[in-house]
Amino acid sequence: MTYGEVDQKAINSIRILAIDATSKANSGHPGAPMGMAPVAHVLFNNIMKFNPKNPDWLNRDRFVLSNGHGCMLQYALLHLFGYDLTIDDLKAFRTIGSKTPGHPEAHDTPGVEVTTGPLGQGFANAVGIAMGEAHLKATFNKPDFPLVDNYTYVFFGDGCAQEGVAAEAASLAGHLQLGNLIAIYDDNHISIDGDTNCSFTEDVLKRFESYGWHTQWVKDGDNDLEGIQKAIEIAKSVTDKPSVIKLTTTIGFGSKLEGTHGVHGNPLKGDDAAAVKSKFGFDPSKSFDVPQEVYELYKEKAKAGESLESQWNALFEKYQQEYPKEGAELARRLKGELPEGWEKALPTYSPSDPAIASRKLSETVLSKLAPVVPELIGGSADLTGSNLTRWKDAVDFQPPSTGLGDYSGRYIRYGVREHAMGAIMNGLSAYGANIIPYSGTFLNFVSYAAGAVRLSALSHVRNIWVATHDSIGLGEDGPTHQPIETLAHFRALPNCQVWRPADGNETSAAYYIALTSKETPAIIALSRQNLPQLEGSTIEKAAKGGYVTLENENAQVTLISTGSEVAIAIDAAKYLQEKHGVTARVVSLPCWEVFDSQPKEYRLSVLPDGIPILSIEVMTTLGWEKYSHEQFGLNRFGASGPYKEVYEKFEFTPQGIAKRAIATIDFWKEVSPIRSPINRAFNQIV
Amino acid sequence: MTYGEVDQKAINSIRILAIDATSKANSGHPGAPMGMAPVAHVLFNNIMKFNPKNPDWLNRDRFVLSNGHGCMLQYALLHLFGYDLTIDDLKAFRTIGSKTPGHPEAHDTPGVEVTTGPLGQGFANAVGIAMGEAHLKATFNKPDFPLVDNYTYVFFGDGCAQEGVAAEAASLAGHLQLGNLIAIYDDNHISIDGDTNCSFTEDVLKRFESYGWHTQWVKDGDNDLEGIQKAIEIAKSVTDKPSVIKLTTTIGFGSKLEGTHGVHGNPLKGDDAAAVKSKFGFDPSKSFDVPQEVYELYKEKAKAGESLESQWNALFEKYQQEYPKEGAELARRLKGELPEGWEKALPTYSPSDPAIASRKLSETVLSKLAPVVPELIGGSADLTGSNLTRWKDAVDFQPPSTGLGDYSGRYIRYGVREHAMGAIMNGLSAYGANIIPYSGTFLNFVSYAAGAVRLSALSHVRNIWVATHDSIGLGEDGPTHQPIETLAHFRALPNCQVWRPADGNETSAAYYIALTSKETPAIIALSRQNLPQLEGSTIEKAAKGGYVTLENENAQVTLISTGSEVAIAIDAAKYLQEKHGVTARVVSLPCWEVFDSQPKEYRLSVLPDGIPILSIEVMTTLGWEKYSHEQFGLNRFGASGPYKEVYEKFEFTPQGIAKRAIATIDFWKEVSPIRSPINRAFNQIV
Repeated sequence: MTYGEVDQKAINSIRILAIDATSKANSGHPGAPMGMAPVAHVLFNNIMKFNPKNPDWLNRDRFVLSNGHGCMLQYALLHLFGYDLTIDDLKAFRTIGSKTPGHPEAHDTPGVEVTTGPLGQGFANAVGIAMGEAHLKATFNKPDFPLVDNYTYVFFGDGCAQEGVAAEAASLAGHLQLGNLIAIYDDNHISIDGDTNCSFTEDVLKRFESYGWHTQWVKDGDNDLEGIQKAIEIAKSVTDKPSVIKLTTTIGFGSKLEGTHGVHGNPLKGDDAAAVKSKFGFDPSKSFDVPQEVYELYKEKAKAGESLESQWNALFEKYQQEYPKEGAELARRLKGELPEGWEKALPTYSPSDPAIASRKLSETVLSKLAPVVPELIGGSADLTGSNLTRWKDAVDFQPPSTGLGDYSGRYIRYGVREHAMGAIMNGLSAYGANIIPYSGTFLNFVSYAAGAVRLSALSHVRNIWVATHDSIGLGEDGPTHQPIETLAHFRALPNCQVWRPADGNETSAAYYIALTSKETPAIIALSRQNLPQLEGSTIEKAAKGGYVTLENENAQVTLISTGSEVAIAIDAAKYLQEKHGVTARVVSLPCWEVFDSQPKEYRLSVLPDGIPILSIEVMTTLGWEKYSHEQFGLNRFGASGPYKEVYEKFEFTPQGIAKRAIATIDFWKEVSPIRSPINRAFNQIV
Repeated sequence: MTYGEVDQKAINSIRILAIDATSKANSGHPGAPMGMAPVAHVLFNNIMKFNPKNPDWLNRDRFVLSNGHGCMLQYALLHLFGYDLTIDDLKAFRTIGSKTPGHPEAHDTPGVEVTTGPLGQGFANAVGIAMGEAHLKATFNKPDFPLVDNYTYVFFGDGCAQEGVAAEAASLAGHLQLGNLIAIYDDNHISIDGDTNCSFTEDVLKRFESYGWHTQWVKDGDNDLEGIQKAIEIAKSVTDKPSVIKLTTTIGFGSKLEGTHGVHGNPLKGDDAAAVKSKFGFDPSKSFDVPQEVYELYKEKAKAGESLESQWNALFEKYQQEYPKEGAELARRLKGELPEGWEKALPTYSPSDPAIASRKLSETVLSKLAPVVPELIGGSADLTGSNLTRWKDAVDFQPPSTGLGDYSGRYIRYGVREHAMGAIMNGLSAYGANIIPYSGTFLNFVSYAAGAVRLSALSHVRNIWVATHDSIGLGEDGPTHQPIETLAHFRALPNCQVWRPADGNETSAAYYIALTSKETPAIIALSRQNLPQLEGSTIEKAAKGGYVTLENENAQVTLISTGSEVAIAIDAAKYLQEKHGVTARVVSLPCWEVFDSQPKEYRLSVLPDGIPILSIEVMTTLGWEKYSHEQFGLNRFGASGPYKEVYEKFEFTPQGIAKRAIATIDFWKEVSPIRSPINRAFNQIV
């Protein structure tokens, strides 16, 4: 491939669109798009396979812009290649309701694979995407049927390179020998604080080598198009290692301020923008003006992509004939449908069944689902034996050369890398084909992955955190491991299901709703200690997020609780009746997010007017006022000791609850009417 | 130094104490203490300087056990060397109220420098401690007065090595050329999932080399005591690089299960424990039985430490005579007292002053305080120009060879490493001498550091997050950067002050309380957009955490708000009066944690009975029910666009608030009495 004038024009068109859009918005980051336009052109026009008419084609090459602030680069490319993104969409950059928000959002913009901007996330997403590819390839490809053989490309800058989440993911990618992953490091020496020499002087390529990556350096990323192409082609040829190409570029190439942080996060000044246009042979008086030949050039590429997908469709057609079972299975997954009747595998329990820790109940669910939901891909951040996330005959997802598994394996050994695990789950899901990632750690350490969980919720990703050791009930490990604030944190996150099941049926319900909520992540908080099977629980009831587990006519108080405290609340109701002649009813509320989505009538039947409500949960009371008049919780750190003693210390016993229930009844006697907190003066904005 | 029988006995005593304590608790991690006992003995007995009688001696060498689950190693050492930790304390391992909780807690146990257990944190703390040392050394040492010349040692295992927070900190430590930092990597090939080859196959030493560390490998960490000592001595002699020593050890050395994960997180079985004792020449029928000669050996070391501190005290005495100014200054800092009258430097404002973004108000505070509070050490995660965290003539904390600053500098360029920044702040504070670390990032990215913030709160550390761009008010950057759940998350964390000041006086108050709260971290959420100076605000009022900013007799509703919405709420009150004849009063609640600590009488005067309360904040409503009857907030993700348009879209305008205030008044008319939510049926456990 040799590059000519039209290529340069295309590159400059990308640069100028970035200048124009950030100028019009008076906001945004022109520097990275201007610096990375050459490699973007080479990659998109001469390397990648994709069909702009169908951004969901399974075997497309994936592209992730981890330095998401440079999103005008991606938006410009998507527009120029003919994705469903018009020049008017570019003009609406960074305005409300546009398809071109301030950072790329997968849910908003066709062709954007994952939501990026929070640094390091995209890089780790790309590792997950590449893992998804490796898994599908190993699962479905047959001789002469390379259905899955795409590459994943990720651009990242100095900021991403400094983030721990990217470091964790890079280490794991090296271990996993992901030959289908090619990362391009924009070595422009500039971050917001100025020259990277003020804080970032490590040898990045050497670090990636230490992880087991193949490394290259292209020294003139501004001009050496052939060099860039060659490096990417070499990277593609390395099949047993992920590749990183360090590309030295000039941020804001062409601007008066090129090579400085002045061009990183601010639009170019008017005269500078005009000068860049003149220098590149564009009309400085025009904006958003793309030469027709650039559109033509890219249209050809788009057509070629369309044809590639047609060929692939034909291949898949043939595959379905030759391998009807696998073909039907892949076709099902591509439709995003779960296997028919899968939910029948969910275990149910009756009160006579023994008390079992909910982490163990979760293990049973996973073991039952693993054979019937083959798109479930599990893992743990090095707590497999504690999280109980691995079913018995699971195969590990490993490079075959390790002798520990293969890429068709569905159990991932993440290592102690919670943040990368979260971001990789987002990537696995983004790969498509209905992959449903789940993974385990202690609930307390989901917080390490807060940045990734937030992006799951924002970008509508279905994945599941198996979050065991969910409270002071973990006992001896003590306050460093006992969550207090964690559930409140994730309950406050929009579009995130936080489950805390009280028994076996509720655990099954949590998985049922989590798996069928295609656009919502779930955190399932599970106990270390044994929990009895409740009288009133069923999968159907728990699937509503909240229900009455112990009804009592003429009750004087409603006790509302979750997880391990529900059984104690039921005991408290009995104790209240026996010792104090006080009648209580008990509500289990395993998932607020799901309960909130029920009709008001139902919610009011669970939490009716007329009597006060007392909430009970062994962690922060923050937020519980939403469902209760009084709150019993733990607004302090826990204690290290055997869990029963810890529960007693903090009075989470039938007696401790009863005492507070009586105080609640007394205190609310004088108020009339006692209204359920379900009643509100106005509706929230959604 | 040659090692003999008594050394081996000491090493085995440590091992056996770990076995006995975990057996008695029937819980805990014997493996790491048994594997690391040799290096611990060499380090504590033959290398480190410390005085068990005074764990606070400034110039002691610091020791951090980053693999905190191995805490019986540390507890055994502290006991044996004569710290205030008895054999009965060891017997109380992992029981409620003991000085020997499940993971080391700095606040609970004399001699424990930082709270560890959550993996990776201790490693990053150690980097912060070493930075504190380098800073104090550069600030106070004089020729012939090496007042500060200690080393910081940190043990870490494979788990810590996999965590991103440690990777970030290691990269920064390399950049900073911290020659006083020596890390010992317990290369035992075992983590909870089994052999590390299942997820962790990178070349750790090569990675540290890439960061600029000096690296060594001691291949027989079980037996080669001379080799261990020599390696540490070489590491000490390397003054321009941090050092890491990879120490290959056998986890659970001596047990039948040595070298397997069977000995990682479970006590040894009885017969195994007995066999180990016999093998090591101990009486298998006895527990917690330390040979007297081991106590004697360590007593000598302790005495030597006492004498070292005496010499140091004499040196400091002489220093105070020769350098009275510096001597008095260091003496003040060692007392933990702020300079007299420092608070007079806090700026105050009146309503006629212009509207200013609170991030800018924060910059003014920092610029005023920097000269008068020299123990303030600032920084930013590569957002200096956005967080406005750097005062004008600040010197950067940098190795002099960079030409960018020196170690006496008080401004740290953290790079894009939020999690390490949080953990390093904990380490800086742990170094002592009243160091008060603060640092900046966007509020949304404090979440990346959640693991470190939690440990600040748990271990009673004073530090300050300058958390700018605190809401949808940041505008164009969009939902990926707009916090929704963040304040709720940290408000739910015990012992954490979350401030959201509404104007200049409130910003000064936030800093005043944050600096004078010696055992509590603070997150100060600050706006990107301009905020007017309020009529009713003063530092004194805001310092109570909440106060009435607009009082009105016969008010029909209380509006309660924080930060940028307070002024809008005041406008809404005016609008309600003018357009609807409705009288409202307005409360500003910049810090819940501080408000909650006020007397009930005061809190009731701010939020009185009798009229309903409506809260207004442009993020999750979760938790606001604690202070209000109705809540106006944003329980969804934001939008990318100019901030005024975003505020309008979500109706955070005087009209939008007024509409909801009227709905609130109407809705609560029928309830009697309307009680302030300050009234509760019972008190929370604290």
